[in-house]
Amino acid sequence: MTVTAPRGFRAAGVTAGLKASGRPDVALVVNDGPLQVAAAVLTSNRVQAAPVLWTRQAVSDGVATAVVLNSGGANACTGPEGFGDTHATAEHTAAALGVSAGDVLVCSTGLIGERLPMPALLAGVTAAAEALTPAGGDSAAVAIMTTDSVPKTVVVQREGWSVGGMAKGAGMLAPGLATMLCVLTTDADCSAEDADAALRTATRVTFDRVDSDGCMSTNDTVALLASGASGVRPSPDELAAAVTQACADLARALVADAEGASHDIAVTVVGAHTEDAAVAVARAVTRSNLFKAAVFGNDPNWGRVLAAAGTVPVEVAAFRADRIDVSINGVQVCRAGGVGEDRSGVDLAAGREVQVLVDLHAGDARATVWTNDLTHDYVHENSAYST
Amino acid sequence: MTVTAPRGFRAAGVTAGLKASGRPDVALVVNDGPLQVAAAVLTSNRVQAAPVLWTRQAVSDGVATAVVLNSGGANACTGPEGFGDTHATAEHTAAALGVSAGDVLVCSTGLIGERLPMPALLAGVTAAAEALTPAGGDSAAVAIMTTDSVPKTVVVQREGWSVGGMAKGAGMLAPGLATMLCVLTTDADCSAEDADAALRTATRVTFDRVDSDGCMSTNDTVALLASGASGVRPSPDELAAAVTQACADLARALVADAEGASHDIAVTVVGAHTEDAAVAVARAVTRSNLFKAAVFGNDPNWGRVLAAAGTVPVEVAAFRADRIDVSINGVQVCRAGGVGEDRSGVDLAAGREVQVLVDLHAGDARATVWTNDLTHDYVHENSAYST
Repeated sequence: MTVTAPRGFRAAGVTAGLKASGRPDVALVVNDGPLQVAAAVLTSNRVQAAPVLWTRQAVSDGVATAVVLNSGGANACTGPEGFGDTHATAEHTAAALGVSAGDVLVCSTGLIGERLPMPALLAGVTAAAEALTPAGGDSAAVAIMTTDSVPKTVVVQREGWSVGGMAKGAGMLAPGLATMLCVLTTDADCSAEDADAALRTATRVTFDRVDSDGCMSTNDTVALLASGASGVRPSPDELAAAVTQACADLARALVADAEGASHDIAVTVVGAHTEDAAVAVARAVTRSNLFKAAVFGNDPNWGRVLAAAGTVPVEVAAFRADRIDVSINGVQVCRAGGVGEDRSGVDLAAGREVQVLVDLHAGDARATVWTNDLTHDYVHENSAYST
Repeated sequence: MTVTAPRGFRAAGVTAGLKASGRPDVALVVNDGPLQVAAAVLTSNRVQAAPVLWTRQAVSDGVATAVVLNSGGANACTGPEGFGDTHATAEHTAAALGVSAGDVLVCSTGLIGERLPMPALLAGVTAAAEALTPAGGDSAAVAIMTTDSVPKTVVVQREGWSVGGMAKGAGMLAPGLATMLCVLTTDADCSAEDADAALRTATRVTFDRVDSDGCMSTNDTVALLASGASGVRPSPDELAAAVTQACADLARALVADAEGASHDIAVTVVGAHTEDAAVAVARAVTRSNLFKAAVFGNDPNWGRVLAAAGTVPVEVAAFRADRIDVSINGVQVCRAGGVGEDRSGVDLAAGREVQVLVDLHAGDARATVWTNDLTHDYVHENSAYST
């Protein structure tokens, strides 16, 4: 059900022939109202794909009726012609739905630097519009997959209203959003301002804290559509909490399906003087290829954790290297910047999830950033597959 | 000859038993003068190994007689006891040479978070002191190797004087020095101030622009010893130029021997508004696991170059995404932020060296940062070998 779990939404996923594999590649999500509230958070990469440029403008009034998404091509670095293709996609979708093109958000994912095959794409949009149903969420979630091995969906139930969502993304996962497309829907009654605030609150502590491979995409988009069809108006905090829970579930699902990964690694930094400092230190650890490769080898190499933490500038995170404690899966392998318990007591082969806890002993703030290990399969997928 | 090519130096490399492999693991370089000028550039990582803390203090007066180096253990994150071990190593070396411990620089490389086997190390120092010869440079260069497959040495000849050097480092190569130890010697007559200035000039544009895997070490040390034995006093600029050439040769050798790499990648950014901007954009590209994996797959994936460039904040590098040109091995695959020449014209399988040229069209500054591709063998070496 996913994006069609909340009332007031229809969706569809179809095969337009954009992918060599012949798998579904065009998805459409439509908000039947009564409200057409919308918000979006977009990549902070300065190289932005045409659909990101379009969507930023289209959502700026807080109104959208539909999101059209394609896999099989990112439409990034395609110049004015590529922007024209996105515009034509929005116009075509709008005509099929009888709405304004300015109320259609567009998302694309796939290879950078190639034009989309427009006749096939537009025919797919037509087919998707004809296939729209209130049960179409699952097929939409499948149609946005690229190297994902499973579709990612979520439903968060509240008293009389809900949040549904779907996401894709398995590589190029890094902050300023993981490389990903995500559409969230809710039948809550809310203002555009509340939707925007809820989405920004949610992404800041979820998708922005997934850093699978340190590579920020040109196409990242998280959109939220609100239909108001439940007739229930949650408080802004209640809305934000539900959207955050939905995003957290989807973000965790992205980590669990990251390209080639064999471990999901949660790096939690506590005892920081600010939350930003905690995020910066956690991010440095999640970006260490050496540490990530060590985890792949089931080696609880805490020295690489400290070496990564030490690269964070002092003006970003105040701490003393000789006070840091590090625990891996509950074993305090580093104490006060030096040797702690025997690292042979850490068993990384037992499960997929790895918990790294770094205590800076410099304050009360904390944050968790998720990443994956660096594996042969990651190298293989990203040397063989062009994105 | 390496560090013993300039007059006034003796060196030795011996096997102390620190390495399970039984390979040489202790090196000693001694400056017989008449000058004992010294300078050093040390890691900017905030987690600093005991020998880095010691050497920073020992070199602060611009005087050193000897450098003692061990592979087989980094002596990092070993607390006050580890610092005591470094101190004891300096004292033991000083006693063997009949000099002051404060004039002995110490370097270590190997596994983080383990104490050094001091009886073996001190016996090795004794043996090295007994083995010192004016032809010992090559054996010293071998004794500092870890995962290096070949020793790295250099000699830069000038009129009547020279600069010699040796370096090790094959992983954890990142700025604020590549993970590396390097000892340079010269028989030039120079002041401590000139030596320090020459070394900082040199490292800024050489070792600081090698970024094999984005991981900055706790132990990086580049030391320069000047004996004055040639009786020739070059100008400060002449000295800096010769030291820079020596460092450039050694830095290139480090890239060529990086762990598991199959390509050496030079990312040159031109048309930047400042040199710092050029370095920042080049660094972002050299840190992209996706781009580095693509090069391993012989895929000239310029989209990943742009996606990486786009992560650099605008306050760091002013440029417009829709003006960027990218050439790979001379083929302009991206023009004005969009599709350029056919990328099938780029042959990355032909050779080891890859030239990536990014033109920001935003000014006149330029910089080159070297990196390697991300390969199965990198993952293998760093998941199987603890550092």
